[in-house]
Amino acid sequence: VIHVAVLGSAAGGGFPQWNCGCLNCAGLRQGTIKAVPRTQECLALTGDNDRWILINASPDIRQQIETFRPLRPQSLRDSPIAAVILTNGDLDHCLGLFSLREWHRMTVYATQQVWHGLMSQNVFFRTLQRFPGQLQWRDLTPGLTQRLDPDGGELWITAFSCPGKVPLHLEGLQASHPEDNIGVRIFDCSERTLVYAPSARDVTPELYAQFQGAQCLFFDGTFWSEHELAGLGIAAQTAADMGHLPIGGDAGSLAMLTDLDVPRRIYIHINNTNPLLRADSPERGLAESAGWEVAHDGLELTL
Amino acid sequence: VIHVAVLGSAAGGGFPQWNCGCLNCAGLRQGTIKAVPRTQECLALTGDNDRWILINASPDIRQQIETFRPLRPQSLRDSPIAAVILTNGDLDHCLGLFSLREWHRMTVYATQQVWHGLMSQNVFFRTLQRFPGQLQWRDLTPGLTQRLDPDGGELWITAFSCPGKVPLHLEGLQASHPEDNIGVRIFDCSERTLVYAPSARDVTPELYAQFQGAQCLFFDGTFWSEHELAGLGIAAQTAADMGHLPIGGDAGSLAMLTDLDVPRRIYIHINNTNPLLRADSPERGLAESAGWEVAHDGLELTL
Repeated sequence: VIHVAVLGSAAGGGFPQWNCGCLNCAGLRQGTIKAVPRTQECLALTGDNDRWILINASPDIRQQIETFRPLRPQSLRDSPIAAVILTNGDLDHCLGLFSLREWHRMTVYATQQVWHGLMSQNVFFRTLQRFPGQLQWRDLTPGLTQRLDPDGGELWITAFSCPGKVPLHLEGLQASHPEDNIGVRIFDCSERTLVYAPSARDVTPELYAQFQGAQCLFFDGTFWSEHELAGLGIAAQTAADMGHLPIGGDAGSLAMLTDLDVPRRIYIHINNTNPLLRADSPERGLAESAGWEVAHDGLELTL
Repeated sequence: VIHVAVLGSAAGGGFPQWNCGCLNCAGLRQGTIKAVPRTQECLALTGDNDRWILINASPDIRQQIETFRPLRPQSLRDSPIAAVILTNGDLDHCLGLFSLREWHRMTVYATQQVWHGLMSQNVFFRTLQRFPGQLQWRDLTPGLTQRLDPDGGELWITAFSCPGKVPLHLEGLQASHPEDNIGVRIFDCSERTLVYAPSARDVTPELYAQFQGAQCLFFDGTFWSEHELAGLGIAAQTAADMGHLPIGGDAGSLAMLTDLDVPRRIYIHINNTNPLLRADSPERGLAESAGWEVAHDGLELTL
């Protein structure tokens, strides 16, 4: 059995975003659209309801932990959080690590690219290295299967490369590499499988194959359209420039994954500009008619 | 006129703290003590109700901005936040900078020590340097008076050195320096003065002199007692080890500042373990009898 809780479902910046007054953000603040606030993407999962694993550590993690009761400490100083899996090195996936300080021992699962990109160039991480073994790194080499939480977990993990990009803060410093951005398959002894891929610039045949057979897929729901930011007058970058495949359109993920045989398909990492955030938008209707759900903070499921 | 809003009043980790089950944290979660939650220390101030300055950028800044309406954006992409003053380089004062990304131009006021400690060893800051001038540094050399927010503010600032320490993540890398930790005097044209010193290991005669004549002083309220953490069985470090003068005791700040002629004296940066957090504690009674207030999130005042 895998228990999953969505702690945060928005892309970097959250919903609303601090400096954004777009239709969605302004409408949410004014209460004029059908939408709920969302913190930045972060998943919690467990196989035994005792030790929990996070996928990505969002900047909102402090608020997210207090909101989700099973993650609260049980004694004077402790936490049920045993490990954090990083799907890439983006700030919205890593900043939360620094809020998990104060002498807590944790395992971080990340590819070599992501780990070295973080550790070698940010002295902040010394805060998480106050005693030997405080932060233990496990290499998420794509294709390699390993036990998740070696101290007693019943879950297993295999990473796979996802088309993506280097984090913004490493652009120009570090060449692109297939291990910059990954998805993960997490499964238990009866092979119930969760696939998590919150960021993908394309659905290649190799990626498609990774999704098959899962009971549940979380997929990149950042943008509805390729030119979403330009269309709103916010920025010139396309979805592809930012490492994301849009949901809509002939070449979008809704079309590309239409025949996928996965019972639960859930969009996550949703940007504040995405019309999917409005419960009554035509785009939301299209996604739901095609069998997709839209992740929201507090969504829980059991596989 | 200076308008001040306390966005966050707790020390690093906030209240409750993610991995803490002490009397205060557990009691707050269970509703068995008289206390309110507090996010991590951060002040917002303005002289014109148009452009706002933050003192310190807490990891909770996203939540704090949405809670305090005047900091919300007014157009498609903008923010009333014009500048951030850093009193030191501790993570709980700086991590929030990374949540203020997305092309927003800001001025950062910090000493040379603090600025170089941040910028030279953390590649994350490239996210805030996407165009020339996105982050503009103004040196807060102690004793030097300068205009706050050169683009139109009516407030002035002078920094002063405070006994303190280098940030935890720079310990062993960077020697102590008088500019590691500062307090600031902020005043308008009629010399209404706010003094802000959220972290101080001692009250020297020089420091005492900086407080005189202010209308309002915010001072280090981290710990009540020198051995607070050891007494709770949490950690061996003393208040002094961590760069803080405790409030209580013969040599504490309550005793040392008892004759200070400042109309409003407010403790801030309060650690989750501090009995001051409980509205009915004897310690709270002592502080209030001596004329001190205890900062809480949402406290606003006008000088």
